[in-house]
Amino acid sequence: MQRNLKLLPELISDLSTRHNKLAAIMRREKIDAILASSSTSLLYLAGSVYRGYFYIDASARCLALPVRGEAAEHIPACHIRKPELLVEALTQNNIPLPEMMGLEFDTLFHSEFLRLKNCCGHAAITNASPALREARMVKTPYEISLMKVDGLHHVAAYRHIGSLYRENMTDLEFQIEIERVLRKEGSLGFLRTAGSAMEINMGSLIAGPNADTPSPYDFSMGGGGVDLSLPVGADGTMLRQGMTVMVDMNGNFNGYQTDLTRVWRIGNPGELALKAHEVSCIILHELEAMGRPGVDISSLCEKAYEIVHANGLDEYFMGHESQAGFIGHGVGIELNEQPVIMKRNHSPLLEGMTIALEPKFVIPKVGAVGNENTYAVTSQGLLNLTPASPEMEELI
Amino acid sequence: MQRNLKLLPELISDLSTRHNKLAAIMRREKIDAILASSSTSLLYLAGSVYRGYFYIDASARCLALPVRGEAAEHIPACHIRKPELLVEALTQNNIPLPEMMGLEFDTLFHSEFLRLKNCCGHAAITNASPALREARMVKTPYEISLMKVDGLHHVAAYRHIGSLYRENMTDLEFQIEIERVLRKEGSLGFLRTAGSAMEINMGSLIAGPNADTPSPYDFSMGGGGVDLSLPVGADGTMLRQGMTVMVDMNGNFNGYQTDLTRVWRIGNPGELALKAHEVSCIILHELEAMGRPGVDISSLCEKAYEIVHANGLDEYFMGHESQAGFIGHGVGIELNEQPVIMKRNHSPLLEGMTIALEPKFVIPKVGAVGNENTYAVTSQGLLNLTPASPEMEELI
Repeated sequence: MQRNLKLLPELISDLSTRHNKLAAIMRREKIDAILASSSTSLLYLAGSVYRGYFYIDASARCLALPVRGEAAEHIPACHIRKPELLVEALTQNNIPLPEMMGLEFDTLFHSEFLRLKNCCGHAAITNASPALREARMVKTPYEISLMKVDGLHHVAAYRHIGSLYRENMTDLEFQIEIERVLRKEGSLGFLRTAGSAMEINMGSLIAGPNADTPSPYDFSMGGGGVDLSLPVGADGTMLRQGMTVMVDMNGNFNGYQTDLTRVWRIGNPGELALKAHEVSCIILHELEAMGRPGVDISSLCEKAYEIVHANGLDEYFMGHESQAGFIGHGVGIELNEQPVIMKRNHSPLLEGMTIALEPKFVIPKVGAVGNENTYAVTSQGLLNLTPASPEMEELI
Repeated sequence: MQRNLKLLPELISDLSTRHNKLAAIMRREKIDAILASSSTSLLYLAGSVYRGYFYIDASARCLALPVRGEAAEHIPACHIRKPELLVEALTQNNIPLPEMMGLEFDTLFHSEFLRLKNCCGHAAITNASPALREARMVKTPYEISLMKVDGLHHVAAYRHIGSLYRENMTDLEFQIEIERVLRKEGSLGFLRTAGSAMEINMGSLIAGPNADTPSPYDFSMGGGGVDLSLPVGADGTMLRQGMTVMVDMNGNFNGYQTDLTRVWRIGNPGELALKAHEVSCIILHELEAMGRPGVDISSLCEKAYEIVHANGLDEYFMGHESQAGFIGHGVGIELNEQPVIMKRNHSPLLEGMTIALEPKFVIPKVGAVGNENTYAVTSQGLLNLTPASPEMEELI
């Protein structure tokens, strides 16, 4: 049985927009052509994941080069049995060989790189990953519409969370029930991340003292995990009175994703936790008011740290034993895209960026508190794609 | 809260065995030292995953170099803030700089490689991935004991599968219930794979015509998936009378994993499917009788293809629209390890290898049939680590 590889007309036209945007970056960076190979780039440039390559030159001329499987309909394609046939395929399709070829240095394994660079004739080779990240950083209206769909499903699944709790559950048992609800709502489960320091199953749930256990991965929060082979997230903590439970789980429903965190409490987690959660809500409220195209990203961070400091919560912000160096990040096909929302990022917000803001606090022995929403930067300001109630509800 | 980073005494002694085995391979390959960096290698060499590096030289002298997080207790360690401090850290620990340094070409992103090779002083650089794969290919008794535990949990979870079925379920709804049972049994969810062509959530369930839809990934079976962004596995097929349902899902309970496939039927899937399943059982039975240290791996394949051919099932074996080129593979920390069980692999089985054998058939319109077990190669022959009933049970 063949796969259904028809793309919606809106997506086909959107792909042209993406190609033109990338081509403009390529002209600026003097990259004559890019041979993309990661699943992320294929999905972005060809609208579907296949095994093989996608060639695009600086005038936005494209050729899908599937090695196994097929590219979607309406995408000009040429099957190649192996990458060594690249030059032949380009020649057959009357595409002149580039002088400067971009390969994805940041996602190709070094062995794959060594093979691929020898398939590019005598083109000089440069790193195409920054250009691709830059193109993907600003979303098209169509991409944002997909993320709106994610947000709706994500919020809908989170609405069930309260009803999944039972007394004497462990954090992990609670997480498993939430995983199921997310999957039933349409979460694809697997999610794409950038970099090699992200290993996780469908996101993180942390509660009690475990929230303060550092993790070696690049997520904003930690947790020790249940096994030394995967030291992140739920660790088997029995959920008890006075704890908070932070849920930061998978929002990939269509290849794009939203990032959404909410916190629940069991009984009374104490003044400090309640106050810190309130401060997180205030920070998000302030950043929502500030965020618009042209605003310096570092100024968002300054504002957040200013509010944290005024409330005397510095030592708990973005972790306690170990503190993350960012308060948010771009999100899209990958969970962690550009821009990174951190103090030293002095770039402006741009219309079309989609960013997760996550001012969180770790309260020793209690758990983590704070919300995370995913926003689209529009001409009118930040549009919340994950409009769930900000309250810390009680689990009963 | 600190992570509990105590290792069991058996594991500490096992790590020495692994180091000595790798060091012997390094001496043969004239690699003076390896700077390992992948999660897989850290888990193998240091017993836990942390952010950073693990240095081992050809005399099995080791030094963990965590950048973030810590190595487990009893592992000689030196924290480094960044890889550029490697030479300094080695010097401080009286470790002479190697002349030939191995880096993991097959798991380092090219950008990471470029950075890391500049941290190695004037050492020449070579690919350490093959040596690490070779060391990991033959398991220690302790590693096999972990995989026995995986197998017991894996089989225990699969025993619930029949009871999870409801009439008018889709393949995906069925899969979600199985995911939950696996997670409740202790599956860590996330699993490690080798190479860049493996993206999946907790494994695959395929039923009906979808079993014959090719996937671009390197799994033995396909399936179209529910979204073009993740084209593999369940595609939303309504489970109907006459279909088979193949379950090939996650067996990672402790960082090691087993690979286990069983098939269920809804009503009568027809003569061809029943016969092909029977032939799969016969193949496994024959290969179990043949498999012992010293046996040429290709001879196992020859035997399998001989039985398939004698039964006139060639066109359905290991896929129909698209056929996999292997009938099994090593399994351990990663789902797909050495050796690959394929015709052109003329290496011998070695005591301590752990291999999954998966003679499967795709029956057009009906589904896939056949079993997969994970075996340890012992001096007595193949020991089945996944002893579930081979019958194709009926879902009612």
